[in-house]
Amino acid sequence: MTEKKEKTTIVLFSGDMDKAIAAFIIANGAAAYDHDVTIFFTFWGLNTMRRDEVVKVKKGFLEKAFGWMMPRGAKKLGLSNMNFMGMGPKMIKHVMKKHNALTLPQLIELAQEQGVKLVACTMTMDLLGLQQEELIPGMEYAGVAGYLGDAVDAKVNLFI
Amino acid sequence: MTEKKEKTTIVLFSGDMDKAIAAFIIANGAAAYDHDVTIFFTFWGLNTMRRDEVVKVKKGFLEKAFGWMMPRGAKKLGLSNMNFMGMGPKMIKHVMKKHNALTLPQLIELAQEQGVKLVACTMTMDLLGLQQEELIPGMEYAGVAGYLGDAVDAKVNLFI
Amino acid sequence: MTEKKEKTTIVLFSGDMDKAIAAFIIANGAAAYDHDVTIFFTFWGLNTMRRDEVVKVKKGFLEKAFGWMMPRGAKKLGLSNMNFMGMGPKMIKHVMKKHNALTLPQLIELAQEQGVKLVACTMTMDLLGLQQEELIPGMEYAGVAGYLGDAVDAKVNLFI
Repeated sequence: MTEKKEKTTIVLFSGDMDKAIAAFIIANGAAAYDHDVTIFFTFWGLNTMRRDEVVKVKKGFLEKAFGWMMPRGAKKLGLSNMNFMGMGPKMIKHVMKKHNALTLPQLIELAQEQGVKLVACTMTMDLLGLQQEELIPGMEYAGVAGYLGDAVDAKVNLFI
Repeated sequence: MTEKKEKTTIVLFSGDMDKAIAAFIIANGAAAYDHDVTIFFTFWGLNTMRRDEVVKVKKGFLEKAFGWMMPRGAKKLGLSNMNFMGMGPKMIKHVMKKHNALTLPQLIELAQEQGVKLVACTMTMDLLGLQQEELIPGMEYAGVAGYLGDAVDAKVNLFI
Repeated sequence: MTEKKEKTTIVLFSGDMDKAIAAFIIANGAAAYDHDVTIFFTFWGLNTMRRDEVVKVKKGFLEKAFGWMMPRGAKKLGLSNMNFMGMGPKMIKHVMKKHNALTLPQLIELAQEQGVKLVACTMTMDLLGLQQEELIPGMEYAGVAGYLGDAVDAKVNLFI
């Protein structure tokens, strides 16, 4: 007899650094408890998963504009709060370093090591003109149906 | 023997266009999978459901002020992100059109066709002075008790 | 034979007054239905639970800076929306008073009377340099593991 694993899913809609950190801390915690964990990156949340180097891909004007305007990866995100002071993200990174807390890129790496399923929303990719080569390796690709397939078996489903 | 239908509930608290779109895409996806779906519109989320024409109703001064200050319906909402550039909502509408994605008003119509239960939070209506005539037809009206009654039977419960 | 109580958990990440009010209204509603309810205060959500008087504690410079910059308790929070006009929080407080709606401090008191478990995220406290003496009495203290332990048994899990 095999015991069924608990499942946890997170929709990461937000492109804010602090919310992405919260999402990955919960995801990594659940994975440590042996849950099957999925993070579904949609809308601005996809920016968290962009490579930080410029990737040469063919794009239309509007898609290029989105590419320039949106933050390029986990290191470039702003804060949902206190960002207006300019120093918000730097202060947070500073205190996280001081307390030996994992940085967002390290939290992402840990999630990948723990087998957290990282799924990019294909509809958002189409709309914003993001291509697979522009995201970090190891992502899966699905639409809302894929998300719901996971969520319906999960007890903890969060929208962040 | 009848099989019990899965249930999905969404609290739409936000008055941002992008979050409303995400809410309706998830709701319509779940309805397509034959879930019983409820969206509970509270606080700024209620603005999504306002009629876009001015509706003549008797109101006090403060209620009128809220009515003027808040966006009048799904076509008038701003973005949670990149709105500051002014062109955010227009760009998003443009790319959605280019990709033949459903607009927010179309997503709302589809939800109604699929029988998604659209519930206006009566407490918010009282506070902001919104009256039933000002919302689109076909809404239901309930308080937090009504929401919890649905949520407790649902596997997927999101707050957006 | 004892019937198992339903469980509801809320992560309050946001430091906005309107979102905190929504969280406590849902929490109090669920508690009135005899659910076991937990609110887990993390990141900016912890500001909701700060005492409003200055509490003398030893702190480093950065921790003091966070302490000054962040709102000191439930009465000082801003709005997620329409705050920019300056008068947002005052208008909301005014209409809530007019409609005899409970204020946020009253909602917090009611939650405590109803036995809602109020848990401060210890990781956030470390990062932002918040100490137990600076939060209102009656809080519990836990990390993400504590949150997940409650969430996995709950049907309604929200991230606000």
